[in-house]
Amino acid sequence: MSVVFDHDRPRRIGVPEAVMCLGKGDEQLDAVLSALRTDVPVLLTRMNAHQHERMVRTVGETLDYDPASGTAFLHGRLPARSGTVAVVTAGTSDLAVAGEARRTCEFMGIATQTYADVGVAGLWRLQERIGEIARADVVIVVAGMDGALASVVGGLLAAPVIGVPTSTGYGAARAGETALHSMLTSCAQGVLVTNIDNGFGAACAAVRILGHQSARPA
Amino acid sequence: MSVVFDHDRPRRIGVPEAVMCLGKGDEQLDAVLSALRTDVPVLLTRMNAHQHERMVRTVGETLDYDPASGTAFLHGRLPARSGTVAVVTAGTSDLAVAGEARRTCEFMGIATQTYADVGVAGLWRLQERIGEIARADVVIVVAGMDGALASVVGGLLAAPVIGVPTSTGYGAARAGETALHSMLTSCAQGVLVTNIDNGFGAACAAVRILGHQSARPA
Amino acid sequence: MSVVFDHDRPRRIGVPEAVMCLGKGDEQLDAVLSALRTDVPVLLTRMNAHQHERMVRTVGETLDYDPASGTAFLHGRLPARSGTVAVVTAGTSDLAVAGEARRTCEFMGIATQTYADVGVAGLWRLQERIGEIARADVVIVVAGMDGALASVVGGLLAAPVIGVPTSTGYGAARAGETALHSMLTSCAQGVLVTNIDNGFGAACAAVRILGHQSARPA
Amino acid sequence: MSVVFDHDRPRRIGVPEAVMCLGKGDEQLDAVLSALRTDVPVLLTRMNAHQHERMVRTVGETLDYDPASGTAFLHGRLPARSGTVAVVTAGTSDLAVAGEARRTCEFMGIATQTYADVGVAGLWRLQERIGEIARADVVIVVAGMDGALASVVGGLLAAPVIGVPTSTGYGAARAGETALHSMLTSCAQGVLVTNIDNGFGAACAAVRILGHQSARPA
Amino acid sequence: MSVVFDHDRPRRIGVPEAVMCLGKGDEQLDAVLSALRTDVPVLLTRMNAHQHERMVRTVGETLDYDPASGTAFLHGRLPARSGTVAVVTAGTSDLAVAGEARRTCEFMGIATQTYADVGVAGLWRLQERIGEIARADVVIVVAGMDGALASVVGGLLAAPVIGVPTSTGYGAARAGETALHSMLTSCAQGVLVTNIDNGFGAACAAVRILGHQSARPA
Amino acid sequence: MSVVFDHDRPRRIGVPEAVMCLGKGDEQLDAVLSALRTDVPVLLTRMNAHQHERMVRTVGETLDYDPASGTAFLHGRLPARSGTVAVVTAGTSDLAVAGEARRTCEFMGIATQTYADVGVAGLWRLQERIGEIARADVVIVVAGMDGALASVVGGLLAAPVIGVPTSTGYGAARAGETALHSMLTSCAQGVLVTNIDNGFGAACAAVRILGHQSARPA
Amino acid sequence: MSVVFDHDRPRRIGVPEAVMCLGKGDEQLDAVLSALRTDVPVLLTRMNAHQHERMVRTVGETLDYDPASGTAFLHGRLPARSGTVAVVTAGTSDLAVAGEARRTCEFMGIATQTYADVGVAGLWRLQERIGEIARADVVIVVAGMDGALASVVGGLLAAPVIGVPTSTGYGAARAGETALHSMLTSCAQGVLVTNIDNGFGAACAAVRILGHQSARPA
Amino acid sequence: MSVVFDHDRPRRIGVPEAVMCLGKGDEQLDAVLSALRTDVPVLLTRMNAHQHERMVRTVGETLDYDPASGTAFLHGRLPARSGTVAVVTAGTSDLAVAGEARRTCEFMGIATQTYADVGVAGLWRLQERIGEIARADVVIVVAGMDGALASVVGGLLAAPVIGVPTSTGYGAARAGETALHSMLTSCAQGVLVTNIDNGFGAACAAVRILGHQSARPA
Repeated sequence: MSVVFDHDRPRRIGVPEAVMCLGKGDEQLDAVLSALRTDVPVLLTRMNAHQHERMVRTVGETLDYDPASGTAFLHGRLPARSGTVAVVTAGTSDLAVAGEARRTCEFMGIATQTYADVGVAGLWRLQERIGEIARADVVIVVAGMDGALASVVGGLLAAPVIGVPTSTGYGAARAGETALHSMLTSCAQGVLVTNIDNGFGAACAAVRILGHQSARPA
Repeated sequence: MSVVFDHDRPRRIGVPEAVMCLGKGDEQLDAVLSALRTDVPVLLTRMNAHQHERMVRTVGETLDYDPASGTAFLHGRLPARSGTVAVVTAGTSDLAVAGEARRTCEFMGIATQTYADVGVAGLWRLQERIGEIARADVVIVVAGMDGALASVVGGLLAAPVIGVPTSTGYGAARAGETALHSMLTSCAQGVLVTNIDNGFGAACAAVRILGHQSARPA
Repeated sequence: MSVVFDHDRPRRIGVPEAVMCLGKGDEQLDAVLSALRTDVPVLLTRMNAHQHERMVRTVGETLDYDPASGTAFLHGRLPARSGTVAVVTAGTSDLAVAGEARRTCEFMGIATQTYADVGVAGLWRLQERIGEIARADVVIVVAGMDGALASVVGGLLAAPVIGVPTSTGYGAARAGETALHSMLTSCAQGVLVTNIDNGFGAACAAVRILGHQSARPA
Repeated sequence: MSVVFDHDRPRRIGVPEAVMCLGKGDEQLDAVLSALRTDVPVLLTRMNAHQHERMVRTVGETLDYDPASGTAFLHGRLPARSGTVAVVTAGTSDLAVAGEARRTCEFMGIATQTYADVGVAGLWRLQERIGEIARADVVIVVAGMDGALASVVGGLLAAPVIGVPTSTGYGAARAGETALHSMLTSCAQGVLVTNIDNGFGAACAAVRILGHQSARPA
Repeated sequence: MSVVFDHDRPRRIGVPEAVMCLGKGDEQLDAVLSALRTDVPVLLTRMNAHQHERMVRTVGETLDYDPASGTAFLHGRLPARSGTVAVVTAGTSDLAVAGEARRTCEFMGIATQTYADVGVAGLWRLQERIGEIARADVVIVVAGMDGALASVVGGLLAAPVIGVPTSTGYGAARAGETALHSMLTSCAQGVLVTNIDNGFGAACAAVRILGHQSARPA
Repeated sequence: MSVVFDHDRPRRIGVPEAVMCLGKGDEQLDAVLSALRTDVPVLLTRMNAHQHERMVRTVGETLDYDPASGTAFLHGRLPARSGTVAVVTAGTSDLAVAGEARRTCEFMGIATQTYADVGVAGLWRLQERIGEIARADVVIVVAGMDGALASVVGGLLAAPVIGVPTSTGYGAARAGETALHSMLTSCAQGVLVTNIDNGFGAACAAVRILGHQSARPA
Repeated sequence: MSVVFDHDRPRRIGVPEAVMCLGKGDEQLDAVLSALRTDVPVLLTRMNAHQHERMVRTVGETLDYDPASGTAFLHGRLPARSGTVAVVTAGTSDLAVAGEARRTCEFMGIATQTYADVGVAGLWRLQERIGEIARADVVIVVAGMDGALASVVGGLLAAPVIGVPTSTGYGAARAGETALHSMLTSCAQGVLVTNIDNGFGAACAAVRILGHQSARPA
Repeated sequence: MSVVFDHDRPRRIGVPEAVMCLGKGDEQLDAVLSALRTDVPVLLTRMNAHQHERMVRTVGETLDYDPASGTAFLHGRLPARSGTVAVVTAGTSDLAVAGEARRTCEFMGIATQTYADVGVAGLWRLQERIGEIARADVVIVVAGMDGALASVVGGLLAAPVIGVPTSTGYGAARAGETALHSMLTSCAQGVLVTNIDNGFGAACAAVRILGHQSARPA
């Protein structure tokens, strides 16, 4: 089994190589690994402990691995770039997805600040921090269940807001569909949305927004 | 065609007779009408202009008809009872359903106060009025789209909160399903929910809560 | 990882702190635990045996743990308050969810009475007990499959009725969606509904109804 | 356009020719008409007033037309056969579908008795008549919304019970899906179900049950 | 935990006591067991090997256990009654559900004949046996995937046809929903349907049909 | 408004220009018309009577218009090519979609034969004609409701079988989804499927199959 | 009926007042109108011809009305700001939604360029224009059916990509859900999505991105 | 338990015997095995390692087993036939399904060529190979997530295109439904679709197309 990487991607869209490990067997990950270039940093997402241990043995190199978010950096990370991203979460259960967004930003060289446990059921927690959040260049809102946090945040600040619905909850939460639909129909104007649990995608979108800003003449 | 009314209902569950006109043809409404007793007030819901005009001619009596909410009172209304209900709405499109809740309460003899256009995208509007809302005995929250208002209100006050999702919106609003699921998974504790657009049901539930309170020894 | 608790919640909405353990790993529960105040009773829900054993070791204190409902009380429970709640269930499979509702009420200091196995397929069982059930201040109906019990109970008594659909059953039961939709479209007037399997939420709603009643001048 | 009728059907399965007019244009109905034999009774279902008037002109013959159920008998009806069918309905809105079941039975020569408005929200109405219903050979239960009537009836009598969910209601009634799923998961044992609004199919199933009984040696 | 059995059920609806073991823990099954009367035969369904072994130890009595269908008879079975049921299946994967239907009939004292592997993709297999199938008093068709077998069988014989959709297949089979919907919209007239995988329910319906026939004066 | 046609399409994929008129207003159709070349035949689909009359006036030219299928040929049709297509339908309601498939084939120069009313509920009708159908090069099966015809036909012949589910029926037919899912899970091997009601797409696929055959050296 | 506008919104989130006319009756629009300030430009969306004519009469002022997109500008538009938006569409049926995005940008003072009919079925059309599209600051991709255009565009350029799924198509297009889900699972990294048909929301998101860029020190 | 094989199938539809092992227990596979004839090659699909090892022991014969695709050939394979199939995949996660298609073709004696990792997010990879792909007689496109590859390939070549949606991805990928619906609404004309993950079915359809071509006189 051979793998054809899109090595041209960074040049075209500004987002580097990444490998999602979810559902990949040992053999598949090995094939992916052998197709990777060794001179560029690589981001691995949805990597479990077994996959991490095995890869450390295979490549004979320590990875920067964060088990809570399932992310790993192989061959270092990208140089720092300007712009900041605020990652805002509703509850403790959303932290894994928020971590994927945060770590992807960090891999890309973007500074982040996480604001956890500011769900709208206890509004004072958000109100205490909204002034600080509003100063970020991009705001990523990670929330499950009713996804109401994206609407409230979107109504309180002017920065681009990226909603990431999460699959937390049960019953009518429908594995994240309710948060997804709730964010898509947000009463706050101009809130954008990613796939359920897609912290990685939200960070890539932030890169597009920030990278593009950098590329424009000042 | 004959109709068998549940004349015993008020005694059993404290909620009087009501007729939903939606989807009923002229002949069906006539049959219902002839089965009603003439000595008790009757609430008619989802009544359109044609049905109203026809019924005025048939019964030879003026109805207290509110076209915006599609409700009508036949043979007066019930005596006033204690307790107040706040009807809180997110946007202009929710007013028809909110009106059904408000008018049903009024028919039952319960005082109401409506708080319109306090959607969470402009949070200051809600915050200006939340102190007043919190003094009601029951709070009915009517909202479509993301249904986020139920969560925010539920997190700010201690009264019983009844969420009524509405079918406003398009696309991912899914004719009210998104607001329904969002309210069911509200991050605020103890928010209860009715069927989509069921302002009548919310008011009946308020009657159960208030009526029951009255029935208890002080 | 730090956790920001909404310590102000009891004052605002009358419902105390609670921690849902479902899906939380050891590290997350530890972080939650260290954020809790040690001088107030805490309710833990959806707690499995492993989580229970680990927490006993961590806090060095016995918990009042009920494995059938997955609930635990840490640092005791709240003082008794007035009002009674009837918890009515259709079948044996609904007892875990009914237990969560019952135990949450008990934690809040509210007296409960459970009426098990009164599903409508054998109507005489419900009819034998309906007189007693009707004397409760709030009635919580826990049922899966067709959810028909909520409609029948709602048509037989005047108290507030809270339907809790359960995820029991298979096939067209759709993991509780059928009971949920059935209760939402109940032909009995004023039946309110919580999320699937949400016994905790039903009890919180009962607290809102009863607590509010207590707060009103007699 | 020519139409190929299954003229052999009555011999094979005991159910005669029938034409569903729903969605058929004038030209299509003409083609169907010219393919019918003129010496056998034909049942037409879902026929609207326009289709009825046009067909009277075309065939130059009066039809036994019932506008409430949208059914018509062309060239008479089938000879009487033994067995009785009870058609039980929850509410006024279910009468059109119940009428389709009743009229199909009548066309087949089977005696029917309709029990209207016996929905479970007012249980006494059903209890007054259940003894009589239980004497029928087949019981067809027509109900929308929560479909709870099928479960209650199924738990009270031993005859074959055929549930016909109807598309009445709004929101979570989901155009009949909720009643359909509710009946499929009925807690009463051995309740069978047809498609939504399919009164015709329920009557055909009754014919299979009764016809088959007749065919067996006494 | 105590269990309230509907001991009156056999008298009312002609179907005896049965216990579905699916999802019941050891403690719950023990409670059920202690509520059962020891002088009447009991049918247990969806019983796995662990539950079987444990119950043998608990009751100190051999059960008539069929692992393929997950059914067991405790305290024997019911006396033989007249009438025959044909159980027709499309493929090998449907045999567990077909076995539940067959065994439930046998427990009830009804003779059955199973016709396996007669799916419509190889029509000759069905055609070879249809004459024999048509002589049964009730025909239960068990099929997953496209559920087409119910339509073809329903068009070839006059007996009552009960379709049991199964959850076999993957993807668009949607865990049995496709077979369910396919059978509900069968182009053959008068096909009735049970819940997905509900072989037990189909057999109970057959009992209603056959039992009722027996009860009628010849 | 200007329209950019894919004039290169015939060269690339062998399928000529076509315009779907459904949902297009007068202005949009005019813009499309002005972008078309006048020297090549054009197929118009889903064209209603109003659109047809207006286009005749606009282009000053008679169209070969078939109102039953909503198709029209502008500037003639394509030259005849080898290969035959059988269009097989279950019921009268499927004829519009079958007509779209047939007419698209005719426009492409492919000979077709339609076999109507051969639904599986009356199997003899299909069996009488299956020998003839099996001689076609491609078989298009058009069926709604349970979609069972695709499985039966697919099991009886070796030609490529293209299933076209139709939106006929009501309730559990779910506007064609049931037929779609049924055909996708057909128990006959190698049945392929198009979108609901997409007779045009089925014919284009037939062109790919036949055109490709022509292109191969004999 | 009075309306409470969020006049503070432009200051908070940089997006001015807008009124969605869809589903609003004459009386509701009048109430909205009287709540608007007359000194600021207002955007009206989903406005039909009747609503437009009536409003012209009511305000006694010409509106800049575009019937194709259903948008109108009242009291002029906002001053020009820097940044450009490319609006890319797959087919003719997507033009109304694309127009809503384009017109909203124009109202906000942002320059746009529309690239129509560049759907991926004829890839050369997109390839001819991709170089030009890639120079825009934000790219809005409007597509229905399979929504594939968002993935292809997202893989070819580095700018922020906002996908707007449209409700065009039939059957499996599911009124825009398929395009929505397709864009959410785009294989191109960092594609963001709005609600179905929400051209207005996409433009507001572009304003957030561009407005924020302007606000940052160069 | 005995199994009735459709031994006549190869003669009727040109596709040989195959056994899907998914979900079959040891006993069921044994029964199937004993019903197979030993003189014809048999294809086994969805066979896991345990099933493979057990079957090797049972039949005392080596199987040609491919663990990646879960396919095995028992008693050899069929003779080579003319025609070639291109199997095109979007990503690494689609390789198991692509392998099932490829192996089924090989078992049937058809030459295949696999083109992996040519997803549309990096379009250059597909463009490098499209000329070669276009020379195949049938093109099978295997893709999950947005399924966009089927549309792009279908717009670039004239051969029959069979789309196989895969269940890869998470959230809005909906276990393959999004890819399925996306392919069904492909903007490329004449793309046909199989069930989710059904590589076997795609290969059988290719056999129908190729086998039929061979059968026609040159």
